[in-house]
Amino acid sequence: MILVMKSGATQEEIDKTAQQIKTWGHDVSISKGEYQVVIGIIGDKQDLAGKPLHTLPGVEKVLEVSAPYKKASREFHPEDTVIDVQGVKIGGGHKAIIAGPCSVDTYENLILVAKAVKEAGATMLRGGAFKPRTSPYSFQGKGEEGLKMLVEARKETGLPIVTELLSEKDIDLVYQYADVIQIGARNMQNFALLKEIGKLGKPVILKNGIASTVKEHLMSAEYVMSGGLNDVILALRGTRSYETAMRNTLDVGLVPYLQKLTHLPVIIDPSHSAGKREFVSALGYAGMAIGADGMIVEVHPCPSCALSDGDQALLPEDFDYLMKKISKLESWNQKEWKKEFGSMQSSQLLKG
Amino acid sequence: MILVMKSGATQEEIDKTAQQIKTWGHDVSISKGEYQVVIGIIGDKQDLAGKPLHTLPGVEKVLEVSAPYKKASREFHPEDTVIDVQGVKIGGGHKAIIAGPCSVDTYENLILVAKAVKEAGATMLRGGAFKPRTSPYSFQGKGEEGLKMLVEARKETGLPIVTELLSEKDIDLVYQYADVIQIGARNMQNFALLKEIGKLGKPVILKNGIASTVKEHLMSAEYVMSGGLNDVILALRGTRSYETAMRNTLDVGLVPYLQKLTHLPVIIDPSHSAGKREFVSALGYAGMAIGADGMIVEVHPCPSCALSDGDQALLPEDFDYLMKKISKLESWNQKEWKKEFGSMQSSQLLKG
Amino acid sequence: MILVMKSGATQEEIDKTAQQIKTWGHDVSISKGEYQVVIGIIGDKQDLAGKPLHTLPGVEKVLEVSAPYKKASREFHPEDTVIDVQGVKIGGGHKAIIAGPCSVDTYENLILVAKAVKEAGATMLRGGAFKPRTSPYSFQGKGEEGLKMLVEARKETGLPIVTELLSEKDIDLVYQYADVIQIGARNMQNFALLKEIGKLGKPVILKNGIASTVKEHLMSAEYVMSGGLNDVILALRGTRSYETAMRNTLDVGLVPYLQKLTHLPVIIDPSHSAGKREFVSALGYAGMAIGADGMIVEVHPCPSCALSDGDQALLPEDFDYLMKKISKLESWNQKEWKKEFGSMQSSQLLKG
Amino acid sequence: MILVMKSGATQEEIDKTAQQIKTWGHDVSISKGEYQVVIGIIGDKQDLAGKPLHTLPGVEKVLEVSAPYKKASREFHPEDTVIDVQGVKIGGGHKAIIAGPCSVDTYENLILVAKAVKEAGATMLRGGAFKPRTSPYSFQGKGEEGLKMLVEARKETGLPIVTELLSEKDIDLVYQYADVIQIGARNMQNFALLKEIGKLGKPVILKNGIASTVKEHLMSAEYVMSGGLNDVILALRGTRSYETAMRNTLDVGLVPYLQKLTHLPVIIDPSHSAGKREFVSALGYAGMAIGADGMIVEVHPCPSCALSDGDQALLPEDFDYLMKKISKLESWNQKEWKKEFGSMQSSQLLKG
Repeated sequence: MILVMKSGATQEEIDKTAQQIKTWGHDVSISKGEYQVVIGIIGDKQDLAGKPLHTLPGVEKVLEVSAPYKKASREFHPEDTVIDVQGVKIGGGHKAIIAGPCSVDTYENLILVAKAVKEAGATMLRGGAFKPRTSPYSFQGKGEEGLKMLVEARKETGLPIVTELLSEKDIDLVYQYADVIQIGARNMQNFALLKEIGKLGKPVILKNGIASTVKEHLMSAEYVMSGGLNDVILALRGTRSYETAMRNTLDVGLVPYLQKLTHLPVIIDPSHSAGKREFVSALGYAGMAIGADGMIVEVHPCPSCALSDGDQALLPEDFDYLMKKISKLESWNQKEWKKEFGSMQSSQLLKG
Repeated sequence: MILVMKSGATQEEIDKTAQQIKTWGHDVSISKGEYQVVIGIIGDKQDLAGKPLHTLPGVEKVLEVSAPYKKASREFHPEDTVIDVQGVKIGGGHKAIIAGPCSVDTYENLILVAKAVKEAGATMLRGGAFKPRTSPYSFQGKGEEGLKMLVEARKETGLPIVTELLSEKDIDLVYQYADVIQIGARNMQNFALLKEIGKLGKPVILKNGIASTVKEHLMSAEYVMSGGLNDVILALRGTRSYETAMRNTLDVGLVPYLQKLTHLPVIIDPSHSAGKREFVSALGYAGMAIGADGMIVEVHPCPSCALSDGDQALLPEDFDYLMKKISKLESWNQKEWKKEFGSMQSSQLLKG
Repeated sequence: MILVMKSGATQEEIDKTAQQIKTWGHDVSISKGEYQVVIGIIGDKQDLAGKPLHTLPGVEKVLEVSAPYKKASREFHPEDTVIDVQGVKIGGGHKAIIAGPCSVDTYENLILVAKAVKEAGATMLRGGAFKPRTSPYSFQGKGEEGLKMLVEARKETGLPIVTELLSEKDIDLVYQYADVIQIGARNMQNFALLKEIGKLGKPVILKNGIASTVKEHLMSAEYVMSGGLNDVILALRGTRSYETAMRNTLDVGLVPYLQKLTHLPVIIDPSHSAGKREFVSALGYAGMAIGADGMIVEVHPCPSCALSDGDQALLPEDFDYLMKKISKLESWNQKEWKKEFGSMQSSQLLKG
Repeated sequence: MILVMKSGATQEEIDKTAQQIKTWGHDVSISKGEYQVVIGIIGDKQDLAGKPLHTLPGVEKVLEVSAPYKKASREFHPEDTVIDVQGVKIGGGHKAIIAGPCSVDTYENLILVAKAVKEAGATMLRGGAFKPRTSPYSFQGKGEEGLKMLVEARKETGLPIVTELLSEKDIDLVYQYADVIQIGARNMQNFALLKEIGKLGKPVILKNGIASTVKEHLMSAEYVMSGGLNDVILALRGTRSYETAMRNTLDVGLVPYLQKLTHLPVIIDPSHSAGKREFVSALGYAGMAIGADGMIVEVHPCPSCALSDGDQALLPEDFDYLMKKISKLESWNQKEWKKEFGSMQSSQLLKG
């Protein structure tokens, strides 16, 4: 942490502030500029997280300098985390393709999709049994009946199943059936739920919030991890902006950015990002091109009879086409780039 | 609902689409323009909420024309809702001032604040026992011990108590002590929680989400109300934008806007909006000036020892100053404005 | 400036970076934390503005600590600037109300409005002769003919005239007639135009950009002021967000925030902020309540025949009502607040 | 256009409104729903652009149904526009790679970069001689001297040159040297400038504004095209959001979205989007993967001695690596997708 003092801060204020920080168990390093004094706090420990640094005498700004997410940070865990879901791996070069209907409706549709996506190359099956809907009058999901259908589909195809958990109450129920637990955008900061699932043993896909920052996304992963679970997959489903062309705004540049900050796998959700079937495949292709560790995508045999988000569902043949394109795609490899060019800046400077 | 067809939509597509809508039990009215055809759906019932209108053949856009929130809408409930909290009223001209610490820390601080805010004119006491914190390593609240302190403070001052509920698991505990249940920004779309509290009998303050729209805020109120509860207070705590001058961006113009759409009371939260004590009072004053039904504001005797959000807490004397200013303020009265000027537009046109 | 080094920065990188800064004529102060090194640059001069600090070896972040706008900053000019427009003052406690049609259309309408707003208490007359329109097919303004009508209206009423300048080419023409030059949102960063008008002698109203930050707004004022002109008025017309309830999002908290950073007068534009007549008055009232140095508001006798932005124009009687309300309003006085409470934080801390 | 009437609109209001529209020369089609009446305006001509439809009696909302940009729209010009710049083509399958320094500094650097990017496969050379800088104290460009250096570099390499125009005053000067005129984000709505360049004969690259919508971007292209020029290239350089991970937020999904709406070529600017060299290449790769018609990218031999935006410049060898990767990349082809799947939705419905 660095405290930037107000330009007119008095020596008394500087002393009081330094004193207070020492009381909290930290050393300080005071650096005086022409107009301003800066106090560096040495030993940037997590126990300062709750301290009211802004209110100390004469303080203008408080600047964080190291990541407040420790378990999620690559700083303290340089190797990629590889998560194993019933033999299907994700992270560290293993790409996972998770496909299936937005919500489970009929058994026939589910099996049809499950077989089709498996055939096309998907490695896991998604399907919602509990649905977070903006309106209380919209279809809310099939509940346990839907979970049971997913289990049947797993039996038929061998694909591990991914499904959303909405409520602390449903934890026992959902954990009984699912292989991977999905936490949606609206619950990204439902901290009570995050704490609970962090104590349990199944991998979690954590989507970013509707307008969360990258840092908040990582802090929510940290909530889960602080419970003991390491198997967290970060999913990018776009964020809200004033632009309504796509359903949400997905900056695929965040894929390599996140991969730099964290060792956890990072996947994209082109369905919720684009929001219109017409652009889902193109966006999924771009996300895989930039090096995502996988994607989660909605597929339905009859989008116009889907009970939720039919607008964004790919048709099975459509998904097959996308998978064929992806299979021939050489993804960008940021690690390789870094090895070749990451250190050139400073050497260049010496010439410059 | 109105369906705008693509400019090249064929007669066959128009017919199929009209046919499908009739299958769902609605009549249609087809209107042909020079370039485009528009299909109006007659009998705009809630059972269309889940239908995949976007995917019908030839459809370009789906336009909603009436509010999807029925219970919260002023359209179907023209009179202001007045909520009575242990004799303290809010709505319909009654203004409520809810003040107290962000989180309950020591009993001494709480009682000191409770007495001070009561003295200054507050009508309810706020205080957090369960705190939603971005970091799992920050102070998470005193829990039941905090709730008990609030009850003591209520005994001392007679002020009803407002406290936040974070988790379905804590419902029984919190309802045992609190007079008003607060749902924070991060849980505005925790639909599982909203459904539960809608079945219970205590008034709810529902804050807007971090980047929610007005419509989503109302839809979340509708979730609570669909459970049976009518006593919902909407609180504006600002939303996220690229600007970091204030902690959040509060457009106080949303106060009269919301009051037009809904019969529920609308209050402001200048503490979370401004985020810095220095601007909290000014913003609170502006919000009361434009006609909010009240405000919820953080007050702490020693901001620098507060365990959360000390930066934005007013000092007790500070709050007293604000209350004195507000007591002399004549709020804008949008209803009065509407009575005088609301219908002038059309009469003016006749002259024009 | 402060350079925060990467956590693994080598001693060689630190030395190279420190060396480079010294080459640019600045001393450094190096402060070592547990994980990170921070380099403070002493003598925070403007000539570092163009230097590629981010690219120095081992640098993680560059933090600015003092305002890059010197002429606009209150730091170097503590007293409020009072601008005198033909005897009408604004700033330092003088409030200016600028009213009139969005665009000048007919002479009859203009005179009718000019007399009405003068009667109601306006101190200047606004009216557009050159209009920036999103569509090239929309009405683009009356040009010189409009300027001449404004001059006539000034003769009739004595009100100084405020009009928008869109193009470098029109500078001579507009300066011949106008008393105050308005620069709109779309030209806030038309630096070529800002430089030109900074060399001329008439006061300027500079609106914020469509999604500008407070800092960018001040930097654009600095562009004008770097030409020599001191008479700049900052106008807040709201910014773009995902919310479409109002035309733009105006956070009136930015009024005291800006007044803290700059000595220039700060006014609000409730017409472009709210965008709908129904909410313009309420928002204008809130903006004056929080202490704006004035407002600029659109008034038209027949909104439905206005050639631009009729939706947001107040009727003359409507404006009169607003002015009567404002005349009885006691504005928030942030300076008074600061005098009473601004220093309490630190004294409180001593007790805490 | 469609007018949605208020739910309580009277027959008199409906009649008056219909009457007024007929006065403006348009037929109407009135459609009555259960709660609401909708008036369709037949003959959606551009002369309604300036009409105050919102203020007509009883009108709740005005909905646009067809594109207000006619010349830029694919609706009226289905074939891709192919622009020829001195033999270098862009659009309709021809991809253009425009590379070079942010601003021209020394002749040595420029020639070094020009040769290097040509060697690597660039088809045009970019370089700024006039720079729009947020601070008036930052380097503002070399002016005519810079333009002359670009001409020299063109002679050496044969690459056509692209350079930014900031001011109406510099039009003659810049047109004398440049092959393609670039209009930057800050001038996207400098309508005076757009009108002027639309009358001249050189191709224009129009970047999107800092927070412009896709529609506004197209409307600005329409401004240029309404002057007579057809050769407009749209460049996506990202927009502002609350997220600061990247310099701007670029949703590459807008590439196929724009290509659907317009026949003009669409390129990406990964340098200003990512803002940090480390992510520029990855983002450029993703943008080309999704099917952009080209890219404009900053390359400098010594980023730390660049006079502007050194942070985001690729090194020449870095650019070469990117180009090699791109040469092996199979871009997504949305037209091919559309041919195979674009019409499946409705046929699927018939089965459903």
